[in-house]
Amino acid sequence: MPELRKDPITGRWVIISTDRGKRPSDFVRESVQMKGGSFCPFCPGNESRTPPEILAYGRNGSGRDTPGWSVRVVPNKFPALGIEGNLDRQGEGLFDRMNGIGAHEVIIETPDHQSTLASLTDKSIEEVLWAYRDRVLDLKNDKRFRYILLFKNHGEAAGASLEHTHSQLIALPIVPKRVREEVDSSKRYFDVKERCIFCDVIRQETETGTRVILGNDQFIALAPYAPRFPFETWILPRQHSSSFENQASPVYGSLAKLFHEFLRRLDAVLNCPAYNYVIHTSPIGEEINEHYHWHVEMMPKLTRVAGFEWGTGFYINPTPPEEAARFLREAQL
Amino acid sequence: MPELRKDPITGRWVIISTDRGKRPSDFVRESVQMKGGSFCPFCPGNESRTPPEILAYGRNGSGRDTPGWSVRVVPNKFPALGIEGNLDRQGEGLFDRMNGIGAHEVIIETPDHQSTLASLTDKSIEEVLWAYRDRVLDLKNDKRFRYILLFKNHGEAAGASLEHTHSQLIALPIVPKRVREEVDSSKRYFDVKERCIFCDVIRQETETGTRVILGNDQFIALAPYAPRFPFETWILPRQHSSSFENQASPVYGSLAKLFHEFLRRLDAVLNCPAYNYVIHTSPIGEEINEHYHWHVEMMPKLTRVAGFEWGTGFYINPTPPEEAARFLREAQL
Repeated sequence: MPELRKDPITGRWVIISTDRGKRPSDFVRESVQMKGGSFCPFCPGNESRTPPEILAYGRNGSGRDTPGWSVRVVPNKFPALGIEGNLDRQGEGLFDRMNGIGAHEVIIETPDHQSTLASLTDKSIEEVLWAYRDRVLDLKNDKRFRYILLFKNHGEAAGASLEHTHSQLIALPIVPKRVREEVDSSKRYFDVKERCIFCDVIRQETETGTRVILGNDQFIALAPYAPRFPFETWILPRQHSSSFENQASPVYGSLAKLFHEFLRRLDAVLNCPAYNYVIHTSPIGEEINEHYHWHVEMMPKLTRVAGFEWGTGFYINPTPPEEAARFLREAQL
Repeated sequence: MPELRKDPITGRWVIISTDRGKRPSDFVRESVQMKGGSFCPFCPGNESRTPPEILAYGRNGSGRDTPGWSVRVVPNKFPALGIEGNLDRQGEGLFDRMNGIGAHEVIIETPDHQSTLASLTDKSIEEVLWAYRDRVLDLKNDKRFRYILLFKNHGEAAGASLEHTHSQLIALPIVPKRVREEVDSSKRYFDVKERCIFCDVIRQETETGTRVILGNDQFIALAPYAPRFPFETWILPRQHSSSFENQASPVYGSLAKLFHEFLRRLDAVLNCPAYNYVIHTSPIGEEINEHYHWHVEMMPKLTRVAGFEWGTGFYINPTPPEEAARFLREAQL
């Protein structure tokens, strides 16, 4: 008999097929591989083919938009939103709109076209996290923005249009719905219980153990109780922390280590799957609070069904999170 | 400059690329074609290869599970939920779950393997709608259910696992999140305004005209103001009506005609795309109300990006609804 489970934060119910759970080998799809061979605007030497860089680490002496960098951030050449102008909010009868003011940036994670995030070193992954942080802190000075979304599409199946490994950032004049829901719901929980719901989840999961994938001193990777997707994973700081960008320096190194190991396990168990991840952090102006707990949500792209879930908010997950966690825990690296 | 638009019902903001809107020919994908050739459990003669039928129309004299039917409803052979047993709700610390009681049925829309819903006659489409209605009314007698979800995945890219054209129905002991949100939000609007928000949208859209695709006496097809997907379309009854299954007989014929013409236009403009649709109607026990307006949400499957949207509730739509509506309005049939 399958099971209906409710996510305590979003209130979303999902169907978990507990009987005939799909194992990693049951998901038929292509591995993500870096093929190279064609022109790549993100490779060193082609710096002039991107818009002028915003940030680069690792370059020693040479000028902007030249090789020698280890991580490089540039504006998206085809941005979803435009950076110039004032926010203009308008009504149109029943409807509300505003002009599309925002920033859309690309974080090029390594100069090496053949690498994936998983194949980088701990140190390089830490640099990527620092680039995320530095860009968020800089963009927060722009008073037009309410939220800065960090995310990665890895592999064509997950929506990546360029092969060279990169993450993206979108700064928005509104807070995205899913984030607003999570923040508001955890606020309601805090108002009743005087505790952060994520902290409570971490406490319970640590005791239960069946959905814990891995952990270190500062972070824990969990298969959530009511995941939408097979092998969905959340990475959370163990201690309460409401914003990604306001961490002490050692935290990024610690996250990089855990994230790296998680990515290697994911590649080992699912044979280099396409995936998406997003960083959920508190909205701008609400950074310091006791109710919201920043985290990474990782969603491997294993199943095809899509529009139905979009239309209903209703998910059928063929792999119980306890099994997903066990596979990832027991991965041979 | 792109535009941020807010859906008045769900409160979801989307980015609409108004500048360089994608035209139908800009979406590269495979047309959905019925290939046939391999064994099909939904074809006449193979009735014994499905679970015993629940409903069939058009059979004249011959017995159950034999050929001669025009529309046939059977249990899903691999159901997401099980029909047997009592609902058992349990807590597990912070978490909530229940056993997966529900119904999962398949509506085989035609005996002809080569047909698509769009290539059927008005009359056959009407029969499909009657089958939807009859199954919903029957399942509502089961007191364990709170919602009955009607949907269709058309084409492999939209999640269809069998080629022979069919729809699905899932009866659930809970109300899906997206439906709950819509119903609650329209209730809040009604409490303030004493009007149905969908009726207000229809009134405004009829006056504006730019997002109207087609209409007849009883129904209207609109490109919504803040669509998540290119060519997303809603079909709504013009007059306030809160549940799909409680309509006077002529209504299903009228919807079939409009839906048929819409599907033909969609196939003409987008070259037989994969799509999903869902019917959003009031939850069981709330069928008669002044605030919620049942409708069909049609989502052609044209773009690949997915996990990011799932993680954020944030959508980037490359085709303004005004352009989508114009293409569909001006389609050459």
